[in-house]
Amino acid sequence: MTDLLLRNVRPMGGTATDVLVVGGRIAAGPAPAGTPEEDGRGMLLLPAFVEGHTHLDKTTFHLPDWLVNEVGPRIEDKIDTEREWRARTGHDAGAASLAMAKAFLAAGTTRIRSHVDVDTSGGTTHVERVLQTREAMRGLQEIQVVAFPQSGILGRQGTESLLDAALAMGADIVGGLDPCAIERDPVKHLDVVFGLAEKHGKPVDIHLHEPGTMGAFSLDLILERTRALGMEGQVVVSHAFCLGDIPERDRDALLARMAALGVGIATTAPASRPVPLVAPCRAAGVTIFGGNDGIRDTWTPYGSPDMLERAMLIGLRNNFRRDDEVAIAFDCVSAAGAKGCGFADYGLASGARADLVLVEARSLAEAVVARPVRKLVVSGGRVVARDGALLA
Amino acid sequence: MTDLLLRNVRPMGGTATDVLVVGGRIAAGPAPAGTPEEDGRGMLLLPAFVEGHTHLDKTTFHLPDWLVNEVGPRIEDKIDTEREWRARTGHDAGAASLAMAKAFLAAGTTRIRSHVDVDTSGGTTHVERVLQTREAMRGLQEIQVVAFPQSGILGRQGTESLLDAALAMGADIVGGLDPCAIERDPVKHLDVVFGLAEKHGKPVDIHLHEPGTMGAFSLDLILERTRALGMEGQVVVSHAFCLGDIPERDRDALLARMAALGVGIATTAPASRPVPLVAPCRAAGVTIFGGNDGIRDTWTPYGSPDMLERAMLIGLRNNFRRDDEVAIAFDCVSAAGAKGCGFADYGLASGARADLVLVEARSLAEAVVARPVRKLVVSGGRVVARDGALLA
Ligand SMILES: [Zn+2]
Ligand SMILES: [Zn+2]
Repeated sequence: MTDLLLRNVRPMGGTATDVLVVGGRIAAGPAPAGTPEEDGRGMLLLPAFVEGHTHLDKTTFHLPDWLVNEVGPRIEDKIDTEREWRARTGHDAGAASLAMAKAFLAAGTTRIRSHVDVDTSGGTTHVERVLQTREAMRGLQEIQVVAFPQSGILGRQGTESLLDAALAMGADIVGGLDPCAIERDPVKHLDVVFGLAEKHGKPVDIHLHEPGTMGAFSLDLILERTRALGMEGQVVVSHAFCLGDIPERDRDALLARMAALGVGIATTAPASRPVPLVAPCRAAGVTIFGGNDGIRDTWTPYGSPDMLERAMLIGLRNNFRRDDEVAIAFDCVSAAGAKGCGFADYGLASGARADLVLVEARSLAEAVVARPVRKLVVSGGRVVARDGALLA
Repeated sequence: MTDLLLRNVRPMGGTATDVLVVGGRIAAGPAPAGTPEEDGRGMLLLPAFVEGHTHLDKTTFHLPDWLVNEVGPRIEDKIDTEREWRARTGHDAGAASLAMAKAFLAAGTTRIRSHVDVDTSGGTTHVERVLQTREAMRGLQEIQVVAFPQSGILGRQGTESLLDAALAMGADIVGGLDPCAIERDPVKHLDVVFGLAEKHGKPVDIHLHEPGTMGAFSLDLILERTRALGMEGQVVVSHAFCLGDIPERDRDALLARMAALGVGIATTAPASRPVPLVAPCRAAGVTIFGGNDGIRDTWTPYGSPDMLERAMLIGLRNNFRRDDEVAIAFDCVSAAGAKGCGFADYGLASGARADLVLVEARSLAEAVVARPVRKLVVSGGRVVARDGALLA
């Protein structure tokens, strides 16, 4: 059943109205006789959310035991700890990603970009398993899979072929990682990443944790290749921490080039370090959108499948206090996420895929700061969750 | 009824045990026959939480309409907007503070330090009303009232006498505010604040938003007066943002003096600006503890009566990922808060007041990152809330 009439709902907190869904899409005009109805009771109607950067394969969300985190402080500690933990425990990226994808759906997220590890220990296993999750969720949730070389490409012989295989078997996007700081050969790393993108005709999404001028240099090289290969609108830089700690003039020069090339930024808006701020990115015309990064994995105990919580954290990180600013934080987990990741048919306009969320909130800002239970989640016009729980 | 046997609970996530309460306090030994029992079903037992810095009088939590925030960026904009809004709407600090205190209790907080505005517009009305809330909650929740000159003392004639009156009528603590940046005469401001403290024999808690060397200068003057007046252990500096953006050597010199004088720090751990980090403060021997600051008021739409959420935000701000680090974030909203505010008889040891919280969590870290519903809240040995809702 993909026809639906949502009665008495307030889109984005505006005036109460009815919203019609025909054939899974938002439609105009009067409801055909016999259209199933839901009483929205004046609730706030939002477009379903977009998770723009997570790692479905990494989570321990589905495991019975709590994972005690005792990891060291360096990024290399975290990479090594995770690879060893996975090998030791036989971590099942399929069960992990499916549990997490369902939790996202129950909390109102119908579009996810997930980086998925490809390395010489796990090979393409994690990608295979998350592709199975993608199939299992098809029609309910759209999942993009990034073939992500978490342990680097250059230092571990065979990773490039594994990435190639992951893309051949259906991964949607080529990942990359800290060309200078981790890979220690930015040109070679980016040649591999962009080479794979060219070969498979697929977009790129690169983790760039590098701070300061080192990160700015890597970003410069990424932008150079984006232009040389005509990959405008096909590249995302995840984190891009460097944009938070270089002089504003240098930052703005990079942002201008990113805007011209349609290079987006995925941000988790971490509280503990410099980050690209949302306002200057948007002012420059750069699409910046939100994601959790890992959720309850060997890297971090934090994170939540609730994208309203991520919107709140983005709002807090950017000191967005006014209602019109909190709306920008929400945009980062909705329309900007869809735009940045290239998810089609997004939004509340007529013709969009009817992916919808109802919550009890007086305003959009209240939905973000209070994160009320999802009373109703609709995917493709179908009611898939009520009161925070998936329907059978 | 203030005797209670909590069966099968895991204190701080440790081994399952029974916890006995006799006469409202945690007791050792076997339970007397007939002691009422609660089945803890292996849940995590925590000491009830401490809110170390909030503004119960300011919230709009109890109002039917959402307050649209359109305030300007400067601190002065926020001060003026609030004073005008209060006058225009006839804001009732009694209803506001009572609703918020109850929400805190339902979420497991039994001790609160609330700054309460004293100014020439509202006079001592807000203090009077919050003192009524304090009385209404007596036995269930301990509330400390800080007489807080939100609009400054020096620029608004009569504020000093109003503070004096507020302290005479029962406010517990003398507040203060940005001696340089707002008051523009640090010596005069601090002379008034410490003069009132001396006169009434009451402690001091000063809002210090001032960044950098200006804030460090104000802090220096505060420490000087603390020592001169023999007020060791009687002074808290709230926010102390300057400790987040001065050179580490200068910071550590100030922290050493604060430790020697028993001067604590209340922090909200905001994500959007430099703050005193928890680890160096604790390493120096300074008690640093957490609070929301305002919750859904004219200043900010954020904040929550859930102190586990504040612990999470402290953890995120300080990049506390390991379980032993997340435990420190929890300490900031529990034992360190009790110590910093001077709440007596705190904790899970025998003899402590039986203020307890039960949640379904596998570990202390999970309680912080997942913030599960409070299955049971006990105050003075009495069950006061179940499943997140107060009992009648
Ligand atoms: Zn990531
Ligand atoms: Zn405050």
